[in-house]
Amino acid sequence: MRRFLDLADFSREQIEELLVIARRLERVPEPDALRGKVLGLLFMNPSLRTLASFQAGMARLGGASFVITPGSGTWQLETRLGAVMDGVAAEHIREGLPVLASYCDVLGIRAFADGKDLAGEVADTKFAAMAALIEQPLINMESAINHPCQSLADWKTLDEFNVPQHAKFVLSWAWHPRALPLAVPAATVHMAAMRGMEVVVLRPEGFALPAAVMDKARAAAASSGGSVRESADRGDALAGAHVVYAKEWGYTAAYGDEAQDARARASLRDWCLTEDWFAAATGECRLMHCLPVRRNVALADALLDGPRAIVRRQAYNRMPAQMAVLHQLLA
Amino acid sequence: MRRFLDLADFSREQIEELLVIARRLERVPEPDALRGKVLGLLFMNPSLRTLASFQAGMARLGGASFVITPGSGTWQLETRLGAVMDGVAAEHIREGLPVLASYCDVLGIRAFADGKDLAGEVADTKFAAMAALIEQPLINMESAINHPCQSLADWKTLDEFNVPQHAKFVLSWAWHPRALPLAVPAATVHMAAMRGMEVVVLRPEGFALPAAVMDKARAAAASSGGSVRESADRGDALAGAHVVYAKEWGYTAAYGDEAQDARARASLRDWCLTEDWFAAATGECRLMHCLPVRRNVALADALLDGPRAIVRRQAYNRMPAQMAVLHQLLA
Amino acid sequence: MRRFLDLADFSREQIEELLVIARRLERVPEPDALRGKVLGLLFMNPSLRTLASFQAGMARLGGASFVITPGSGTWQLETRLGAVMDGVAAEHIREGLPVLASYCDVLGIRAFADGKDLAGEVADTKFAAMAALIEQPLINMESAINHPCQSLADWKTLDEFNVPQHAKFVLSWAWHPRALPLAVPAATVHMAAMRGMEVVVLRPEGFALPAAVMDKARAAAASSGGSVRESADRGDALAGAHVVYAKEWGYTAAYGDEAQDARARASLRDWCLTEDWFAAATGECRLMHCLPVRRNVALADALLDGPRAIVRRQAYNRMPAQMAVLHQLLA
Repeated sequence: MRRFLDLADFSREQIEELLVIARRLERVPEPDALRGKVLGLLFMNPSLRTLASFQAGMARLGGASFVITPGSGTWQLETRLGAVMDGVAAEHIREGLPVLASYCDVLGIRAFADGKDLAGEVADTKFAAMAALIEQPLINMESAINHPCQSLADWKTLDEFNVPQHAKFVLSWAWHPRALPLAVPAATVHMAAMRGMEVVVLRPEGFALPAAVMDKARAAAASSGGSVRESADRGDALAGAHVVYAKEWGYTAAYGDEAQDARARASLRDWCLTEDWFAAATGECRLMHCLPVRRNVALADALLDGPRAIVRRQAYNRMPAQMAVLHQLLA
Repeated sequence: MRRFLDLADFSREQIEELLVIARRLERVPEPDALRGKVLGLLFMNPSLRTLASFQAGMARLGGASFVITPGSGTWQLETRLGAVMDGVAAEHIREGLPVLASYCDVLGIRAFADGKDLAGEVADTKFAAMAALIEQPLINMESAINHPCQSLADWKTLDEFNVPQHAKFVLSWAWHPRALPLAVPAATVHMAAMRGMEVVVLRPEGFALPAAVMDKARAAAASSGGSVRESADRGDALAGAHVVYAKEWGYTAAYGDEAQDARARASLRDWCLTEDWFAAATGECRLMHCLPVRRNVALADALLDGPRAIVRRQAYNRMPAQMAVLHQLLA
Repeated sequence: MRRFLDLADFSREQIEELLVIARRLERVPEPDALRGKVLGLLFMNPSLRTLASFQAGMARLGGASFVITPGSGTWQLETRLGAVMDGVAAEHIREGLPVLASYCDVLGIRAFADGKDLAGEVADTKFAAMAALIEQPLINMESAINHPCQSLADWKTLDEFNVPQHAKFVLSWAWHPRALPLAVPAATVHMAAMRGMEVVVLRPEGFALPAAVMDKARAAAASSGGSVRESADRGDALAGAHVVYAKEWGYTAAYGDEAQDARARASLRDWCLTEDWFAAATGECRLMHCLPVRRNVALADALLDGPRAIVRRQAYNRMPAQMAVLHQLLA
């Protein structure tokens, strides 16, 4: 294993092997496994879980890490090819990325979507261009359309709560004051399909996930014995659900158009999930979310503080999941 | 020992045991004591000493640390219960704190006072609410009303300079352009009382420390054979002083009222301590301050650069004091 | 070795010994050499390479590091002696620097020029005042007039590409939207002279390096058998060049005068280096730059992406060069 960029790059067996390693490292620490090794962490966007869990996980394996945050302690990085750089960015990724990679044994990069060019984001053009600059081991810490570390942690969480392989998994749109990227919904629908689940994407009209995202998930479902469909009908989607994974994202019907996005979401404040939503779900139906989450905006206090919510466990699982990835890349 | 939140949670013997460990770790390093252990550091407010000394101290014990700074690389954290989070904060402490704690073996939190609600700050309501969210070992890195790491370091410093147990200890208000929190004065008056000293709080009218702070210090003095009183008379307070601990804080007579605070301090610029203040003190009277300090505003250059000042030693002692705490919590 | 502040503080033999250690550490890692040791990194200015390479290098030797960035997570530091500190800075370097130094085994400081007082900057007054406050080992991570870590890495890079000792080395001014400091050009001309090279400083009228900088380089050349001269004539300077080291800097004819600087550079946009510049150079002439560099402003894309550019190797060499310095200071 040289790169961890997308769960789709791996077989189901390889993912399960990573989860075996993750669970083993929880039971039997290896505080010297990565002695003398260095993880570089490049954050083009803010972070809490990723920042803390990668540093903590690397340290628990005996390695070290450094953090680079363009715009805070480091100048802005230019990403456009051929740019005449007389603006704010003092350095181009064509220098910055290979240089950072040359200092470390593995580089993690977080680079969110700009929320403008849907086709480019679905193709993950910007991240792919970055990855092409680097020969060393590389980790996707969330790109425009993917978040494989989150998905690996979520898979581990589903296993821990004994969610059956073919159970009904509802990815539900949730309200947010403004458009958020497609990375987590795209990664989640694929992960659940790859795990073999009956996946329903519940979202208002105009918020359908892009066809390429749905097609990729369907291909994964075809191999795993799962299924993938979408719905705008809460009753239909939530009936018999074993898991509801809530997530906020942007108006795909006119992606990048802030005015249309704002108009579309103005009437959707009732997409703040409450206990009522679970009336027709299975009794033990779980509530998942990748965090951060806006309380009483996307999810009601009572849900987050109640027994359905396993969001903290998902967040905790980022650490052992990523430790398994680091172990496979470097040990 | 599971938490280090307040010197008052410990017996005098326990504090002295921490100081024994601190001195031992200075003499005999233990670079493997905390191998594979992780310290999480959450800074809701700026820091220099705390940030550097905790990271350095943890590293000297073989452990590692990570730093999270909401508002700089990480989004703002909401602290209000029941908030409808459609403002700037993207995550609530009810998720953020347990998640961070789950990545580390001990979490340190710095969360200053807002300078508005005196009763709430004296009761340390905000910090207590945070602490209640966390089951793991926890360190108070300065809350609204406490700074136990500073106090432990100060106690060590007093011992090093052979300041007698019952010597006169003057906590003196000092000028500052605006109100500062009560954490250090409150922690300091309690620490000195717990150590058995004759404590005098010297401050202008309107800047008395809250009754609950004084009562807590008096209770500690009752056990240690010390005493605690306050005075607005410099001659009275400083006569025979063995230690003057200077500190800036806000106008408690109308706490949180910026206009009244500004009016009250406008005529108090002569509360910038100078050598003259020490005329009736003991010859070897020491000058302490927790730092940072504004030169020629709170303390004159000549004092800080002269032989009385032991402020750098106080700051240095943060590291071994905190190493002792980490050792007791984790080794 | 107690300090690494200026290549001129060392003999040629000492520099060569550092380079031997650097190459040895690349071949034979020493992941325990600095176990339990701590490097403090104080950044008064932004960084990418220095920040990452020092942390990575220290970690590869088994040590740890902490980062302090005044203005981001830490308050601003006052540097003026005798200041009445009622402005934005909450702490003076007279407290801050010794305190930080007391937590670590070696402190690195980055403090750029203000771009105002040429004489003071050439004398490195500000950095010298900082260094005088610290008794512990100290590293200059770029001051107003020096950047010894860059120079050591550049020397290593020249050796790796087998650039002959007495080859022609052209330090060429390059365009930039605004004045940049003199640290890298001053350090580079001295390093190349100390290595024994035929150094030509190519720059437009009004951008001559200060006399003291040139004199220091000439003194180094006198010992090494090299030479140092300046020229405003590209044809003359570049003919037969083995190395072109491009760098942007300010208008020294009226240093600190932004309006005159802007007027002077307005007509100099053709000082963006292109392949044409190399027509009369040696066939294998190398292009160096310390980075960050603005593409198509200071250097053309085709040059940076072509075979002449060894800028990434220079940047990579920061790490082993600094590891050698840390090893000599602490192991």
